[in-house]
Amino acid sequence: MLIKPGKLLAQIKDPNDLRKLDPQQMYEVCTELRQFIIDHVSVFGGHFGASLGVTELTVALHYVFNTPYDRLVWDVGHQAYGHKILTGRREEFHTNRQYGGLSGFPKRDESEYDAFGVGHSSTSIGAALGMAVASQLKGEKDRQHIAVIGDGAMTAGMAFEAMNHAGVSDANLLIVLNDNCMSIDPNVGALKDYLTDITTSPLYNKLRDELWKGLGKLNAVGPQARQIAGKLENTLKSFVLSHSNLFEALNLRYFGPVDGHDINHLISVMEDLKHIPGPKLLHCITTKGKGFSLAEQDQTKWHAPGKFNKLTGEIKKKTFEKPQPPKYQQVFGHTILELAKQNDKIMGITPAMPSGSSLNIMMKEMPERAIDVGIAEQHAVTFSAGLAAEGMIPFCNIYSSFMQRAYDQVVHDVAIQNLPVIFCLDRAGFAGADGATHHGAYDISYMRSIPNMVVAAPMDEWELRHMMFTAVENRNAPITIRYPRGQGVKPEWRVPMQKIEIGKGRKIKDGENIAVLTFGHIGNYVVQLEDRFQKVGVNPAHYDMRFAKPLDEEMLHEVFKKFDNVITVEDGCLMGGFGSAVLEWMMDNGYQSKVVRLGIPDALIEHGEQIELQREAGFDHDGIFNAVCKLAEIKVSEKKDDQALSLN
Amino acid sequence: MLIKPGKLLAQIKDPNDLRKLDPQQMYEVCTELRQFIIDHVSVFGGHFGASLGVTELTVALHYVFNTPYDRLVWDVGHQAYGHKILTGRREEFHTNRQYGGLSGFPKRDESEYDAFGVGHSSTSIGAALGMAVASQLKGEKDRQHIAVIGDGAMTAGMAFEAMNHAGVSDANLLIVLNDNCMSIDPNVGALKDYLTDITTSPLYNKLRDELWKGLGKLNAVGPQARQIAGKLENTLKSFVLSHSNLFEALNLRYFGPVDGHDINHLISVMEDLKHIPGPKLLHCITTKGKGFSLAEQDQTKWHAPGKFNKLTGEIKKKTFEKPQPPKYQQVFGHTILELAKQNDKIMGITPAMPSGSSLNIMMKEMPERAIDVGIAEQHAVTFSAGLAAEGMIPFCNIYSSFMQRAYDQVVHDVAIQNLPVIFCLDRAGFAGADGATHHGAYDISYMRSIPNMVVAAPMDEWELRHMMFTAVENRNAPITIRYPRGQGVKPEWRVPMQKIEIGKGRKIKDGENIAVLTFGHIGNYVVQLEDRFQKVGVNPAHYDMRFAKPLDEEMLHEVFKKFDNVITVEDGCLMGGFGSAVLEWMMDNGYQSKVVRLGIPDALIEHGEQIELQREAGFDHDGIFNAVCKLAEIKVSEKKDDQALSLN
Repeated sequence: MLIKPGKLLAQIKDPNDLRKLDPQQMYEVCTELRQFIIDHVSVFGGHFGASLGVTELTVALHYVFNTPYDRLVWDVGHQAYGHKILTGRREEFHTNRQYGGLSGFPKRDESEYDAFGVGHSSTSIGAALGMAVASQLKGEKDRQHIAVIGDGAMTAGMAFEAMNHAGVSDANLLIVLNDNCMSIDPNVGALKDYLTDITTSPLYNKLRDELWKGLGKLNAVGPQARQIAGKLENTLKSFVLSHSNLFEALNLRYFGPVDGHDINHLISVMEDLKHIPGPKLLHCITTKGKGFSLAEQDQTKWHAPGKFNKLTGEIKKKTFEKPQPPKYQQVFGHTILELAKQNDKIMGITPAMPSGSSLNIMMKEMPERAIDVGIAEQHAVTFSAGLAAEGMIPFCNIYSSFMQRAYDQVVHDVAIQNLPVIFCLDRAGFAGADGATHHGAYDISYMRSIPNMVVAAPMDEWELRHMMFTAVENRNAPITIRYPRGQGVKPEWRVPMQKIEIGKGRKIKDGENIAVLTFGHIGNYVVQLEDRFQKVGVNPAHYDMRFAKPLDEEMLHEVFKKFDNVITVEDGCLMGGFGSAVLEWMMDNGYQSKVVRLGIPDALIEHGEQIELQREAGFDHDGIFNAVCKLAEIKVSEKKDDQALSLN
Repeated sequence: MLIKPGKLLAQIKDPNDLRKLDPQQMYEVCTELRQFIIDHVSVFGGHFGASLGVTELTVALHYVFNTPYDRLVWDVGHQAYGHKILTGRREEFHTNRQYGGLSGFPKRDESEYDAFGVGHSSTSIGAALGMAVASQLKGEKDRQHIAVIGDGAMTAGMAFEAMNHAGVSDANLLIVLNDNCMSIDPNVGALKDYLTDITTSPLYNKLRDELWKGLGKLNAVGPQARQIAGKLENTLKSFVLSHSNLFEALNLRYFGPVDGHDINHLISVMEDLKHIPGPKLLHCITTKGKGFSLAEQDQTKWHAPGKFNKLTGEIKKKTFEKPQPPKYQQVFGHTILELAKQNDKIMGITPAMPSGSSLNIMMKEMPERAIDVGIAEQHAVTFSAGLAAEGMIPFCNIYSSFMQRAYDQVVHDVAIQNLPVIFCLDRAGFAGADGATHHGAYDISYMRSIPNMVVAAPMDEWELRHMMFTAVENRNAPITIRYPRGQGVKPEWRVPMQKIEIGKGRKIKDGENIAVLTFGHIGNYVVQLEDRFQKVGVNPAHYDMRFAKPLDEEMLHEVFKKFDNVITVEDGCLMGGFGSAVLEWMMDNGYQSKVVRLGIPDALIEHGEQIELQREAGFDHDGIFNAVCKLAEIKVSEKKDDQALSLN
């Protein structure tokens, strides 16, 4: 089903066509673009609110600036649907976020209009500043560099670092602050309050009060004084608004706030800004979900609603005959609350992902003990370390790929001090439709290198509960518990929690000739292959190792004594990952089995369904099955040789 | 040689003794403490300027606050010498930074007064906020939590993230901003200018001008108006200073600026602050090196001068008979300049380490192309990615352990987009006296997991030059070049640069029975063992692999075809490191040699000379020699068995 664009939109192959139109037509272009996005997402799913919120900004930027010569960087990139549609990708747009289709984010190798690849938040200012400095050195004085960044993304430290640098540069940088008071969840922190303050300007209001209070006493001196005071007030007003400002403090020229949905005003402001050299910031107030009233009302729900009926607003949900297993996220959310009710030292920390991680379940009941610190992974970790130093039991829940932002804090503030922070790494393994930037591919490798750190992965919901319980009981080391996005395998998941011995795996089944060692949820694939294995007559043993660190040495001795052929399977990178840990142990302990490692290869895997990506990487059901059979055949033929030998 | 403390200092075993003294005696305590530090560092070496700069702050904090019950976190910790001396460690202080001695930084397991371990910058606000929130939840309303942070450290994003959170908390947090306009090198960025502005308050000055300009016109109306206007001015003054402020924008109550060397005033201000609940910031102006005039004049040189004559200020330098090899740092500094002169696309980026990295050599000659972005590793990397996206050739020089701060940016902004940024990882391997927080232990592991990334290490100065040259020539992937702190082995280092094929190692020498594969500078130890090997009759082959990724597969086929015994040596963590890469390759390619891996074990190695730490980790000269001999003996006995077998 191809979505039909409106009349004007249909003429726009790229921004050159847009720029041929009359400024008066831009309102209509916005309407058509917004409708096209609504039509599309309702049918194909995807991110919604963010792109609706920047429709006018998108049109104005491409209308006023000379893209792609002028560089436009969309922070995070969820909001770049309109940008993609206007820059030559309208007709392919139905492939958005699908395997082999367009990326959900701007991507340099997808279009010359995508000046910088994005996905994680808060990179745009630094990247655009780099481009602007490069242009400056190359003598391209006319080239403009624009970073469009949300107020949520503004809370991350690297945005501040970049502004601190931009403020002493005279490069051609325009920061467009898209202020909608939201991350995926409502934005938090002092900055948010401050931005709201600017728009109502209490500083000016207070100053004016002071002024009139003082001048009130001059009343006696007549109307001339009043008149002069009125003029003084105006001077003060413009002065205070432009000088007493956080961004001005960092030496960025501040403009705004402006209504980010007033297309005509946006165009005229941007035309002016084009001619002001140096670093500057335009503060735009927008509404996430603008133009689709349900999305405006519940912005978190409509961040990425999936497919929906665009007339009724009913979000289409799959229906199932049997009860379905819950998502790991839900199990985390309910289990931390359950644990926290029994132990008042337990706290939950999330950097801006309360609904994504399901920590919102605990936040609702225990707001003082479940804290959203904003998009601030570094702070989330060091804050958790501070809590742990005082005897609290923090669960710090961060998506695996976002944890890359806080690697030093994990090493330096947690592990070196051996503070027992509990890291729950959500979205470990392939993230799915969000693609390469969001895959939790590297965590096993980067976490297990760190002294003191325990690295665990549950094979199912019960195990997640047991591991969370164990982490609370076991207060002598930091622990990482990684689990994937999405469903587990246990519809009846709410079982009593049990303590697991740290570094102890589970034998799932005995077998012959081959042992399969799995780490985490991917172990279920091996269980699900049982019938197929039987049919072809192979009978691999299966061990759920549970811990990539410390390894279950007793179990590994058993495995390597018994099996000459071992397969490791992990939903993580092969370089330095769980399989490597097994290899290291085997070599250090003098075994010489053949080990085949399945996992994410040393390559960038793009977006698609998780199972599609696992297939590409060779560790979906077929991949595992084929690897076992291949190794088994070698074994079988070796056996024949052995028999032949003994018969001689 | 034990340094004698002054009369008052001699009585102070811990802060309780300090608090028994009269406030009037604090000036004398400061004088004695400062002298003790000067005496000590002149004899034993160590960090200097920072601790002298906070002498009064240190005394005031321990005098006013109830440490260790009140929590005191020293950001970075170079400035905590006075703190250590006042908190029970005066008599051991001569062991500071020595192997087995006191740590150069606060450390939780060293003293209950060290509330949080530090080393890397900018962690103190987040950690202290975590403690403050914990106290709040535990109902400890009286407990104070203090973070002392420099203006340099304030530029790192995580400090901003923590302030953004603190501003919406009502926890008992006092941030002491120690503003000396310095990191190790002079502080940079817009924030620095802003802080200077506050102290002279141009906003207030401008507002006052406006006010009087307006009121000037009221002159006609007589002296009464003037008088009222005077009052108005005072109101405005206090209002503007307290409200128009970057920190106030983040909802932190701002106090100051105060003279950080006025001990009496500091004590009285802190007494007041103790009774003001919630998050607040005290802005103190200090002078790094205060009280030692040479150090005040050249603060970078005297950051950590080594031993010196405290009367003449002459810094003691070792003298050598023969010309010495340069430091890798110097080779980097001179070589990047040499390259940049030939190629105007080359740029140098450092996050606040111009002198440490020697990028200052290029900054001097080409200030527009060699940029210090402040303590901001994340921004340094993404900014470099922006430069590379526009065709520039950025050398981004970051200490290995600090690169942990920018791991996500390396993955997300550089490697996923395959932008050819050149990372020079300084202080790779054991950092030495700075200890566990500063060892560059994990980089081989965390870098090689990343797709597209090349990971190289030069064995000597020539190789560093060749690799830097190669990185400029080879513009199709990002590259990491890691090298250690300190001297190489080539006094005549300035050789013509040559292009190396990416992924090609060097055979240093042929040998029998055993091959030693080394990665980086540590390879020289094997060369230096040549005589010892000959004496005991072992003759290991030696390969300098040069690249941990991509591995030299041709060379590895040669090695594993020829040698059943292989030793890998690296100055990096064994978990997932270079040796692991070799194991992975060997297994994937069907070889079954015995591989012994030498490197940093899965443990925290503390501070000391690099060679002492390598000894502890088992890969100093003796460690390598013993490993080779052990493996050789096994081989020899196996050979005997073989012979016995064939004789039968």
